[in-house]
Amino acid sequence: MKVLFITSNRGKFEEARKIGEKYGVEVEWKREEYEEYQGNSLEEIAEKSAMVLSKKIGEPFFIEDSGLFIDALNGFPGPYSSYVFKTIGNEGILKLMEGKDNREARFIAVVAYFDGEKISTFRGEVKGEISKEMRGMHGFGYDPIFLYDGKTFAEMGDEKNKVSHRRKALENFFSSIFNQ
Amino acid sequence: MKVLFITSNRGKFEEARKIGEKYGVEVEWKREEYEEYQGNSLEEIAEKSAMVLSKKIGEPFFIEDSGLFIDALNGFPGPYSSYVFKTIGNEGILKLMEGKDNREARFIAVVAYFDGEKISTFRGEVKGEISKEMRGMHGFGYDPIFLYDGKTFAEMGDEKNKVSHRRKALENFFSSIFNQ
Repeated sequence: MKVLFITSNRGKFEEARKIGEKYGVEVEWKREEYEEYQGNSLEEIAEKSAMVLSKKIGEPFFIEDSGLFIDALNGFPGPYSSYVFKTIGNEGILKLMEGKDNREARFIAVVAYFDGEKISTFRGEVKGEISKEMRGMHGFGYDPIFLYDGKTFAEMGDEKNKVSHRRKALENFFSSIFNQ
Repeated sequence: MKVLFITSNRGKFEEARKIGEKYGVEVEWKREEYEEYQGNSLEEIAEKSAMVLSKKIGEPFFIEDSGLFIDALNGFPGPYSSYVFKTIGNEGILKLMEGKDNREARFIAVVAYFDGEKISTFRGEVKGEISKEMRGMHGFGYDPIFLYDGKTFAEMGDEKNKVSHRRKALENFFSSIFNQ
């Protein structure tokens, strides 16, 4: 069984390839940027983007999108995590969190899969807290401010990939579709 | 001359209708929500959205999109102003601006016009500063924190519509296309 993963990110592809192997799925990299819609949830955005892609790509493929959702900020930066990171960054998030007692946050990843006919989505989620300062040198994006079990994702290194939202979404996807 | 304005916002339609009259253009309201793409600039987003709409709508139409761009925050909240307002609001922006010496900001509006064949965009811009606290009861969105000539947009009431980014974009559009 073979499936295309459309992404411009090599790290994401490598992670998916390894997880796919466990399920006997050959994940092939289609290195491509695609248009993303605006939307209220990652599912909505991924589903619309996959819909548009499905019109050009005849064979089965999947895409993945993820974001950081902070409870005390009404889910901000959510679906626009990447834009927010590029503009105000971790420093901006820490500033917005000053004086907030509730520091709960979730990293969410969504996979949208086109099987040749229809689109399905799969979610992975990891709960944590926003730290009070940046810590750790690994990872990327919001990893230095996302506390999980006492360490930030940026302090965890490869350990992160065992518990990450992306891994959960991919496992959820592979096990639902290919493990039958 | 008649042209459709596709928007779900009655206030925007009324404003465009009045400005259109000055140019002998009958602006007709097509009350509809449409999909917006993600993108790095308002122009890019409006152009893509108009492109998709043009496939369903045969006759000339325009859409409008606007945002607040703050220099000290690398243009944040920019193209995602509406999402940012719904989550962290003016309070969040004021917090991010604490301790910033440079408080310069711009409101930008972009009109994308489909003439039946191709799409053109028109921009309107107004420069101001982010105030240190919210002031004024008029307007909506970021108006209470956008200082223009000593007053916030929310303190200006109808005066705002004489200098606004939206007015400038609409005047720019109507005068380029219909005043020939």
